[in-house]
Amino acid sequence: MSDINPVLEHIDLNLETSIDRLTDLVAIPSVSTDSAFAGKCREAAGWLSGQLNKIGFEASVRPTTGHPMVVAHYTPEGLTGSIPHVLFYGHYDVQPADPVALWDSPPFEATRKTGENGREHIVARGVHDDKGQLMTFVEACGALMSVEGRLPLKITILFEGEEECGSPSLAKFLEENAAELKADHVLVCDTNMWNEDTPAITTRLRGLVYEEIIITAPQMDLHSGSYGGAARNPVRVLARIIADLHDSDGRIMVPEFYEGIEELQPDLKAQWDSLDFSPEKFLGEIGLKHAAGEEDRSVLEQIWSRPTCDVNGIVAGYTGEGSKTVIPSQASAKISFRLVGKQDPDRISAAFRSFVEARVPDDCTVEFLGHSNDPAIEIPRGDRFTAIAAQVLQQEFGKPCVLMGGGGSIPIVGSFKSVLEMDSLLVGFGLVEDRIHSPNEKYEVKSFHKGMRSWARILKALAGET
Amino acid sequence: MSDINPVLEHIDLNLETSIDRLTDLVAIPSVSTDSAFAGKCREAAGWLSGQLNKIGFEASVRPTTGHPMVVAHYTPEGLTGSIPHVLFYGHYDVQPADPVALWDSPPFEATRKTGENGREHIVARGVHDDKGQLMTFVEACGALMSVEGRLPLKITILFEGEEECGSPSLAKFLEENAAELKADHVLVCDTNMWNEDTPAITTRLRGLVYEEIIITAPQMDLHSGSYGGAARNPVRVLARIIADLHDSDGRIMVPEFYEGIEELQPDLKAQWDSLDFSPEKFLGEIGLKHAAGEEDRSVLEQIWSRPTCDVNGIVAGYTGEGSKTVIPSQASAKISFRLVGKQDPDRISAAFRSFVEARVPDDCTVEFLGHSNDPAIEIPRGDRFTAIAAQVLQQEFGKPCVLMGGGGSIPIVGSFKSVLEMDSLLVGFGLVEDRIHSPNEKYEVKSFHKGMRSWARILKALAGET
Repeated sequence: MSDINPVLEHIDLNLETSIDRLTDLVAIPSVSTDSAFAGKCREAAGWLSGQLNKIGFEASVRPTTGHPMVVAHYTPEGLTGSIPHVLFYGHYDVQPADPVALWDSPPFEATRKTGENGREHIVARGVHDDKGQLMTFVEACGALMSVEGRLPLKITILFEGEEECGSPSLAKFLEENAAELKADHVLVCDTNMWNEDTPAITTRLRGLVYEEIIITAPQMDLHSGSYGGAARNPVRVLARIIADLHDSDGRIMVPEFYEGIEELQPDLKAQWDSLDFSPEKFLGEIGLKHAAGEEDRSVLEQIWSRPTCDVNGIVAGYTGEGSKTVIPSQASAKISFRLVGKQDPDRISAAFRSFVEARVPDDCTVEFLGHSNDPAIEIPRGDRFTAIAAQVLQQEFGKPCVLMGGGGSIPIVGSFKSVLEMDSLLVGFGLVEDRIHSPNEKYEVKSFHKGMRSWARILKALAGET
Repeated sequence: MSDINPVLEHIDLNLETSIDRLTDLVAIPSVSTDSAFAGKCREAAGWLSGQLNKIGFEASVRPTTGHPMVVAHYTPEGLTGSIPHVLFYGHYDVQPADPVALWDSPPFEATRKTGENGREHIVARGVHDDKGQLMTFVEACGALMSVEGRLPLKITILFEGEEECGSPSLAKFLEENAAELKADHVLVCDTNMWNEDTPAITTRLRGLVYEEIIITAPQMDLHSGSYGGAARNPVRVLARIIADLHDSDGRIMVPEFYEGIEELQPDLKAQWDSLDFSPEKFLGEIGLKHAAGEEDRSVLEQIWSRPTCDVNGIVAGYTGEGSKTVIPSQASAKISFRLVGKQDPDRISAAFRSFVEARVPDDCTVEFLGHSNDPAIEIPRGDRFTAIAAQVLQQEFGKPCVLMGGGGSIPIVGSFKSVLEMDSLLVGFGLVEDRIHSPNEKYEVKSFHKGMRSWARILKALAGET
């Protein structure tokens, strides 16, 4: 049993050197979805492996058919059986920087700024999602090693390089390395706090079915003067499909879509309703006034406990400057569904495809590409890791920890459960206004700093050392 | 009053020398859209000016801020006021030859071939569009001069070098040279026959209102997990607008859209219905089975005499390979309307914008860009030039002349009307299967030959000399 304070002091004193290391990591443009950046993904994996070896882990870069994994192990001497073995997961890949023109500073240069609220933050692609978040854990381990000469429990680390493109290699990697990666519990740092002063643990994550559809009408592009009127326009077909996906109350019209969804537990609904949350402010910050989801649901329900359908991309015909009088041969859209409760991804995907096919005229064709197929996650009420972390986070922040829903998916959490039978603890230090996936993504210096301190506390608490 | 036969015999006897001159003209790669060929455009203009001077016109190359115009004048001695003054229009610029690999012979070498139907044709870029067509007129003038020593009426010629890139200099050139270019009527040779044996005059061209709309919902791109459900997706707004533009019978739903459209005259409808036209073949060639326009209209009506609404381009969000879980801030579409009859482009544009605005939620914004605003052209029934030309073409071909619609626009025809208050007579000798704008563009030797004979007949008939 040792005092946490020297470790926290070490973190405080070395904040700037920790930020320097984060700066080095975000400088590597490890964009996973674009194969032009494959070398940069390998470089980021190598950089992380090097850092972990320096701290005292046994780390290595492990090839996959896509971007590599980083796997690292640490086992303290004299460990007793009652102290848990944790697997920490993060991802070093980032979203594309596009549209680059909308960034106020170069996307892959960590730029320190002071916000209108007077707080310092760092701007760069990936500085929050997930490089800044995963580095809070790496730096916490580094501080514990520096001060105490050891880590208090057995830790395995897994860093993935394909989270932003659907984790195509992950399930197979978990299966093939199950013995090496199996631990008692997973720790994940890829979520948000409730707000800048209030810590949170995310206990529910929405699933994701992500489909791409490509509709072909005429077999070649046509002149809209010579053929307009008589020739079927694939954009008209696609627009009708997209328009039909919602009714006027915001409900999703794919047949049997809502099967497997239970109503929110009353006590959790009560906590959510009591939260200091302003729908007007939440929507106002993104320039909107009206919630677009089901009319009879609160905004928090719409983003935490209700399923969605969004068009993430659409393209057809001429999209450059000016005009071209073309009837395009093809029109395509990327359409995704966030799932909750026990909605079945396979059934949703099949029902969606039938819904589309029923709306494609018989002289047109439709092709489907499936990009994601993950169920929702719900951490059981009363989970021990959640209870310990909530207590420790309250100590660090001086405020009760919120048990949040998470609108997004972290498919890996589902894979850990299905492949390795491990539950996950989702603790993160991001803020909802951090513009992840958008230009000018940021991470608060306070998020980074308190994140490191929180992980140091959590690791010691899980080892029974507080 | 003089006999046409010696002129026609001269044309017949000198067919090969006429083809030689066309061969020289197509050898000049006057591609207007690619500035690398600017010198070749000047060369083609100079070649034409030289030819016209040789025949007896006063011709010159006239600079513009783009590629030059060729202007030529001829006034016969002893002209009486009752004989019309005509302005002949053609364009010497051509489409790029790309993709060059798909040509069976060098694109800028006129190559004589015999088709599967046993008829001779010439293959080269521009041999139909519009070099072959304009040379039918030049050669007819040459034959008249050779045989009769004069032309029977006052002729001004205008050859443009920017038709294939949107005629950016033309309206200004017409305005600045209005006095010089003003005539009683325009003759244009840039259209098709009904088929290889049947002459046609194009008496209707659809107008074009081309709008671009840009809808902004959230003010920045958002993560579809964090915001999905609550945040308005601009693609959903745009898809609803596009879906609402047509009803299930293919009618366009913009209010008052059909105002100013008259039913087709019964005799014209009867002519169209009697034409040898197979909707199955027309649609089958582009891979479709069902006409997409108004259900109660024939395919020829749908492309010739009915207005349209087409989406020419649409784009939003992530359109690269793979997936990105983004709710885009903006979604945009290029939407165009082909107009007929007296549909008013300004009113259609305004009605469309109101239609869109009514469907944009009050926390979203919409921006409009107008790209085209041209009314339809309809040559009045009973037009004297049409009547004379139809009669003469029937004499030449031994078959009644078809009064066709043209689905596309020829903006120059609108400019002649709006700037110089002149109607146009659209007579051409191309075939729809001539692959204009595509590899292996061709022009039938018969088209060229009968084109020359037809213009000689038309010029004499317009002067009252038959």
